Amino acid sequence: MTTTHSAHSAETPAPDPAAGAAVKAADRAHVFHSWSAQGLIDPLPIAGGEGSYFWDYEGNRYLDFASQLVNTNIGHQHPKVVAAIQEQAGRMCTMAPGFAVDVRAEAARLIAERTPGDLDKIFFTNGGAEAVEHAVRMARVHTGRPKILSTYRSYHGATGAAINITGDARRWPSDNGTAGVVHFFGPHAYRSHFYAETEEQECERALAHLEETIAFEGPQTVAAVVLETVVGTAGILVPPPGYLAGVREICDRHGIVFVLDEVMAGFGRTGAWFAADHFDVVPDLITFAKGVNSGYVPLGGVAISGAVAATFDQRPYPGGLTYSGHPLACASAVATINAMAEEGIVEHAAHIGENVIGPALREIAERHPSVGEVRGMGVFWALDLVKDRATREPLVPYNASGAANAPMAAFAAACKRGGVWPFVNMNRTHVVPPCTVTEAEAKEGLAVLDAALNEADAHTVDAAGAATDAARG
Amino acid sequence: MTTTHSAHSAETPAPDPAAGAAVKAADRAHVFHSWSAQGLIDPLPIAGGEGSYFWDYEGNRYLDFASQLVNTNIGHQHPKVVAAIQEQAGRMCTMAPGFAVDVRAEAARLIAERTPGDLDKIFFTNGGAEAVEHAVRMARVHTGRPKILSTYRSYHGATGAAINITGDARRWPSDNGTAGVVHFFGPHAYRSHFYAETEEQECERALAHLEETIAFEGPQTVAAVVLETVVGTAGILVPPPGYLAGVREICDRHGIVFVLDEVMAGFGRTGAWFAADHFDVVPDLITFAKGVNSGYVPLGGVAISGAVAATFDQRPYPGGLTYSGHPLACASAVATINAMAEEGIVEHAAHIGENVIGPALREIAERHPSVGEVRGMGVFWALDLVKDRATREPLVPYNASGAANAPMAAFAAACKRGGVWPFVNMNRTHVVPPCTVTEAEAKEGLAVLDAALNEADAHTVDAAGAATDAARG
Ligand SMILES: Cc1ncc(COP(=O)(O)O)c(C=O)c1O
Ligand SMILES: Cc1ncc(COP(=O)(O)O)c(C=O)c1O
Repeated sequence: MTTTHSAHSAETPAPDPAAGAAVKAADRAHVFHSWSAQGLIDPLPIAGGEGSYFWDYEGNRYLDFASQLVNTNIGHQHPKVVAAIQEQAGRMCTMAPGFAVDVRAEAARLIAERTPGDLDKIFFTNGGAEAVEHAVRMARVHTGRPKILSTYRSYHGATGAAINITGDARRWPSDNGTAGVVHFFGPHAYRSHFYAETEEQECERALAHLEETIAFEGPQTVAAVVLETVVGTAGILVPPPGYLAGVREICDRHGIVFVLDEVMAGFGRTGAWFAADHFDVVPDLITFAKGVNSGYVPLGGVAISGAVAATFDQRPYPGGLTYSGHPLACASAVATINAMAEEGIVEHAAHIGENVIGPALREIAERHPSVGEVRGMGVFWALDLVKDRATREPLVPYNASGAANAPMAAFAAACKRGGVWPFVNMNRTHVVPPCTVTEAEAKEGLAVLDAALNEADAHTVDAAGAATDAARG
Repeated sequence: MTTTHSAHSAETPAPDPAAGAAVKAADRAHVFHSWSAQGLIDPLPIAGGEGSYFWDYEGNRYLDFASQLVNTNIGHQHPKVVAAIQEQAGRMCTMAPGFAVDVRAEAARLIAERTPGDLDKIFFTNGGAEAVEHAVRMARVHTGRPKILSTYRSYHGATGAAINITGDARRWPSDNGTAGVVHFFGPHAYRSHFYAETEEQECERALAHLEETIAFEGPQTVAAVVLETVVGTAGILVPPPGYLAGVREICDRHGIVFVLDEVMAGFGRTGAWFAADHFDVVPDLITFAKGVNSGYVPLGGVAISGAVAATFDQRPYPGGLTYSGHPLACASAVATINAMAEEGIVEHAAHIGENVIGPALREIAERHPSVGEVRGMGVFWALDLVKDRATREPLVPYNASGAANAPMAAFAAACKRGGVWPFVNMNRTHVVPPCTVTEAEAKEGLAVLDAALNEADAHTVDAAGAATDAARG
């Protein structure tokens, strides 16, 4: 990077526990939180953030190894993006979607310039779930077919269609079983559904599985295959070489729209503007959000190929939202993309992944029996934690909570005590700092993670064996 | 109002047609627009706005009688809201939903303070569709029942569940027929579904219709009844006295969650903070967006009763989104609500409706045979345009386009030529200026509307009769 504003992080402001207590009381009185039992949570009051760090009111500063919800790719409070929001706020906050607006067009141009192939038309939404909703509608109208195919290991958002397309456990309470969605298995060599022994075999069999699923569903009933290019929340699953190209070929053969969901993987996260760039594949639609403007203002969208866009040339696209192409959100995207380009932030993410995070995690894995697998790229990494490296039994059961989840909770608590805010999901921790994270910051965080993994190690069979040996003395 | 920043509107900046042409070209290259055939639209480039006005690059200034998409309740670029956004941008743009954040809690408090009854917990979303999605999920989980009942004359958003709950024609291309939604008829005395001859009869029969629909659907299968308190886009339908109280009673009797969608009707639009205030009814959930911060930053949400919130006290609420409770959006809501309170904007909207817009529209109706009915309150009015006052045949057919819609297109064009940006839907024009519109501005706009109605009059039977008479001459 030519600049490293993240390294300039100010000292944590003076603690003000009384202010923090007031914020928490106000929160508990009136704020209803996502994905939570309201009576069982204890939301930490946060006073501010800058670069790779944020801080509470007690004088604790956290290295953001989660990028919030994997969205602050450019770090907290990037000065160029903040300035652009302030300037645009003074000029034009909002304008209806039907008008032409300079920053809306410029954001679309900067995104279209970076998408692969001819995905040159941009439909803007407020976030990721809406992006998926509209992509799926475009695919259904374009093909005239009802069904969407997606993988079990996936998250696509919490609105009506998006939550049904989602494969992870968050779908269950909202599943109406009727949304025209069929789930299949993507490739995941470490926990192969296909009894594969090599990555090549995993790829080949995963493609055969998709092909046969489509054959039995009826190709003429399938509107779209929706995949996360690199699966995010469900495990940072990097597809084996050839898989995405194989899916592209299957879709082409059957006239199926190929949607890549890059809400989490896009805009630098994998060390490329789009994760699809790593695999030399051009989908028909790409959904994006998060990194497009690091979430400084809610924004998402769909990048649309020429062929799909042409369907809506003479026929109205039957969807919309009040804030499509919101000027303030678009201005922040323009500033974010320009800053990322000027400062070489995407290249920096690739460099940090290849030369710092990847090697360090592999080295850590050698020392910790709880680490079953290390996988990832850019600033998008996972440690798959296990009870037993031989059987690969996850450290905690799928979708565990309470006592069953205690080993992961202990690991997370140790990270926080060490000043690192971790991303934890099921039996995994993801290492997903901002793309702007410096080498020194990454190393600082990895050292904390390293120590915290002792908590996980304590729940492995090795630890149990050692304890037995010790008892046997 | 104690201040009238809207009246201070600067002169339109000097025209710059070359800049406008560049914006349009950039738009056409890369922006995919809502609800439109991309090859058939010609988006007007907009350079700026202030108070009740916005302007293009050609030197044309428009009085915003649509409040964009009925969202800029506080007008364009309100200085206090702009300043609050700029200040918050410098402090903290984004922070994940799991944390406690001062402006998030304060926005929730200010909203909860204004909601009726004990709707004191606030779940934030990015917009209206998501608000409806989450309200419906809460109702389904709270009751353990699958079905949602909503009216044919309604719009609730374009995501999976919201578009299926929607009753208007925008649902058709996305209707999967399977989302557990049942549509019924709400009261609409002017076009009674129930052969009613009085408002009292309309109310009574509409309640009986709902009661019988629930009986045949099976009350134990119905999670929620979702209504717009005052139906917005589908016609500004003010419910007759007693209707909403009747629905409340039916819902109570059957353990059904009563959801009022106030995305369009809330935050001053009807001359009250919430439209429900006019009808002395307390629903279980209120959805909001638009007016909560005039759309300066994308924001929506659900206000939740104690009983529904209690369901998620020990059990996780199974829904969320990356930007729930977005700090920048919440800061703009805090500033908007405070400015509306300080400047008496809600009271002003009530005053303008009762003393200026309502009387003027009734007077206009007398002179124009195309006006079948005037209805509304606050800054939320409709003229229902007809071919024939006797038969009440709409001026254009339901969901008309192209030549069939020419009379409405001619009316809209005349408004624009006169410097007023109208809201037009089907056979109606809605008079929905900002809540801050001054008396002088309202009168200026109404005069333009008055003249433009001659275009509509030309398509009535009276005009046809006059033409025949003249031909007979
Ligand atoms: C791949 C993917 N798609 C969609 C979404 C939903 O985005 P949002 O939370 O902005 O609705 C997410 C959120 O984490 C995501 O990771
Ligand atoms: C009553 C109502 N509900 C929901 C919506 C959807 O809101 P959004 O466009 O922000 O998704 C609208 C939009 O016009 C609305 O009027």
